[in-house]
Amino acid sequence: MNRLANNPDQTPIRSVPPALPPLKIAVAGLGTVGVATLNLLRQKSNWLALRAGRHLEVVAVSARQRHKKRDCQLDGLRWYDDPVKMAKEGVADCVVELIGGADSIAADVVREALENGRDVVTANKALLATHGASLARKAENAQCQLRFEAAVAGGIPIVKALREGLVANQITHLHGILNGTSNYILTSMQQQPGLSFGDILAKAQAEGYAEADPSFDIEGTDAAHKLALLSALAFGRVPTMQGMRIRGIEGIEQEDFAYARDLGMEIKLLGLAELCANGAVYQEVAPLMVSKDAPIAAVNGVFNGIVCRGDAVGDSLYEGRGAGGGPTASAVVADLVDIALGRASPIFGMKLEDLSQDPLAERRDKFSRYYLRLRVKDEPGVVADVAAILRDESISLDVILQRARHHAGGVNLVITTHQADSMAIEGAVRSIAKLPSVIDKPQIIRIEAA
Amino acid sequence: MNRLANNPDQTPIRSVPPALPPLKIAVAGLGTVGVATLNLLRQKSNWLALRAGRHLEVVAVSARQRHKKRDCQLDGLRWYDDPVKMAKEGVADCVVELIGGADSIAADVVREALENGRDVVTANKALLATHGASLARKAENAQCQLRFEAAVAGGIPIVKALREGLVANQITHLHGILNGTSNYILTSMQQQPGLSFGDILAKAQAEGYAEADPSFDIEGTDAAHKLALLSALAFGRVPTMQGMRIRGIEGIEQEDFAYARDLGMEIKLLGLAELCANGAVYQEVAPLMVSKDAPIAAVNGVFNGIVCRGDAVGDSLYEGRGAGGGPTASAVVADLVDIALGRASPIFGMKLEDLSQDPLAERRDKFSRYYLRLRVKDEPGVVADVAAILRDESISLDVILQRARHHAGGVNLVITTHQADSMAIEGAVRSIAKLPSVIDKPQIIRIEAA
Repeated sequence: MNRLANNPDQTPIRSVPPALPPLKIAVAGLGTVGVATLNLLRQKSNWLALRAGRHLEVVAVSARQRHKKRDCQLDGLRWYDDPVKMAKEGVADCVVELIGGADSIAADVVREALENGRDVVTANKALLATHGASLARKAENAQCQLRFEAAVAGGIPIVKALREGLVANQITHLHGILNGTSNYILTSMQQQPGLSFGDILAKAQAEGYAEADPSFDIEGTDAAHKLALLSALAFGRVPTMQGMRIRGIEGIEQEDFAYARDLGMEIKLLGLAELCANGAVYQEVAPLMVSKDAPIAAVNGVFNGIVCRGDAVGDSLYEGRGAGGGPTASAVVADLVDIALGRASPIFGMKLEDLSQDPLAERRDKFSRYYLRLRVKDEPGVVADVAAILRDESISLDVILQRARHHAGGVNLVITTHQADSMAIEGAVRSIAKLPSVIDKPQIIRIEAA
Repeated sequence: MNRLANNPDQTPIRSVPPALPPLKIAVAGLGTVGVATLNLLRQKSNWLALRAGRHLEVVAVSARQRHKKRDCQLDGLRWYDDPVKMAKEGVADCVVELIGGADSIAADVVREALENGRDVVTANKALLATHGASLARKAENAQCQLRFEAAVAGGIPIVKALREGLVANQITHLHGILNGTSNYILTSMQQQPGLSFGDILAKAQAEGYAEADPSFDIEGTDAAHKLALLSALAFGRVPTMQGMRIRGIEGIEQEDFAYARDLGMEIKLLGLAELCANGAVYQEVAPLMVSKDAPIAAVNGVFNGIVCRGDAVGDSLYEGRGAGGGPTASAVVADLVDIALGRASPIFGMKLEDLSQDPLAERRDKFSRYYLRLRVKDEPGVVADVAAILRDESISLDVILQRARHHAGGVNLVITTHQADSMAIEGAVRSIAKLPSVIDKPQIIRIEAA
């Protein structure tokens, strides 16, 4: 019988018991991820001890409601009503923060843990994206680890890949699908042309793929937090939300999917970060069009995917489940094993003082193609007016589609441009919007040469 | 001016110089990868020092021909004609072995380095796949690192992902495109239906994508070495080639691509490792059919890709350049930075004594669909004879294609089966081959539900 049979639970330990004392862990927050983490640590106790060289032992937990029914055992664990107290006074070597929120009690838990010399593992992207620098300083001062694999793209080890695996590369560009909910909605819209954004959102909520208040996901905020962390690691800078362009998926309509299909494109909510020629970093979250043959176009439903472009390695792609108990707990436990083994890493890949704190670039300095959908009056001369404005901004047209899709007295005029400057296109769209023959606000989607 | 401008060469160091002494490195082998590694270390000296907390300093090199023209500077580096002497007597903390070969001088270099207490970084899959256990023992005894990110899938940090990022997961299955040359040939055949295997191979050789003697690549040996290493990490076992099924791509003909297209499939040379119900590990390298919608089907040309299935994380995919100077050097340097930072890892994820040494499973214990292409005489009763044999082995048919593709007096009969046992299908194919109406050796390709 092979020791590695299907149930890792029963992995016998062949070797002498690990010589090191167990890594004592306190877990703050017992939602889906907290419960999955406790279960993973308990079920794979021996399995993990073999890999970490010592036992990973949960000693304390804290959550809002002590007596809530949960799908995990809490016997033998010390309970704290106050997670900050647990972080301060407990006996844990390491505090796992799974409460969430940038300015909630989660921040106090992390600060208190670090100030008391405890390593921290967190899945809290909002916290690190907004207070990353000050927390990294606390961690450095205390010579503690502050790890956040679980904060970005769930079970995909992308934080480790960027910080360690691709360390020899100057990353020049990365883009990714970082929010499963919005990707699920976009994929569903693409696959079910009969249903509107509102229909699909309601369905996703009913199925548990979207929150009751989905604004963080569909407005791009969650993806933006994650992008700030990836960008920090990729470009050696402190994470920042300041100056990041963020646009959600609310404005995408079914007809945009229909035109995208005609153009051989997919619409994806991408987080994108890249190095400008002047050395500044540009960060953007927006629905973008990508060729249906682009690697990222195949990342569908609740999956996440990230493409990184490095100067030595070229493009590499990472894809997997970006949320849920199992994948996120997988990332939390990977960080715990690193801590148990003493595998230390500078929080954002370098010492805080070596990270750039320069402001983000205000706009992308590279030319792009654009998709424009205008709702126009069905009358002669409209195309000529629009074309003249684009010509005046030196933007040349690639494809013009005018399809008999009637809406409130108008028709759609869809244009894709050749490579154009972002300021020129924005100026042109402002002028186009003022044309008397243009009915609604123009839809504009950048075409990312992903 | 942002410090992170396009040329990492000029990265100024903001912080105080690293307090630790430099990591002294000796490089054995100055082919494409050796030269790329020296150049990367030199060009990114400051960049890497910021991330590694100390300088990575090459102090010595060795190669077969001292005075060969190379695209790198060797000034100031101590030259050794004998790499074993360098590994033994040099002043390096760490030896990078880029000579290659399982039983060449490379083995002596690695052994000598470890015996003299030096860490080793190697890209040598053949060496580790065949002598992994004995080298891991040497490394453990010497408390040295033996790292091999560059040995599998070039620049994709898949070794780190399996050993560290996915450590909390029992991997139940993995499959990957692990050899760029054969994937390039298969992709080219698929895209250029007019050209035979021989034509494409000759073209690949002319373009530098295949070696003058391509047998290691096209017969599957190179992929098998890499699979042995991935399997070791994924399943906690010593790497082994013993009992691995290996079949190359030589037998794949253009008409198989034509039928695959009709069936909505792609043909890929996959390395596949999975856990059998009895706990044994099955390892196989073979051309397999996968749905054209499978993630691995989109990995084309010289790219490599790996799909891992973990019990907590589900499926994750890693894709990137699997060979070439830049990607491979990227992996070598990532290992060097880990060593410089003191981030140690058990060689194959656990101590040697905890790794399984059980023999591999002789056959896959899961049912699969199969593709059969038979060249048969164009006469009545053939389908009935073949169908009867399959029925007698309890194999049910899915699709039967009989197309007017005439060959040497015969026609092709193509059959796909429903899920069938591998022994049954092999028995059936043996019987079918003996039918007087069957002209050539039957082509059989497993359909992998990737």
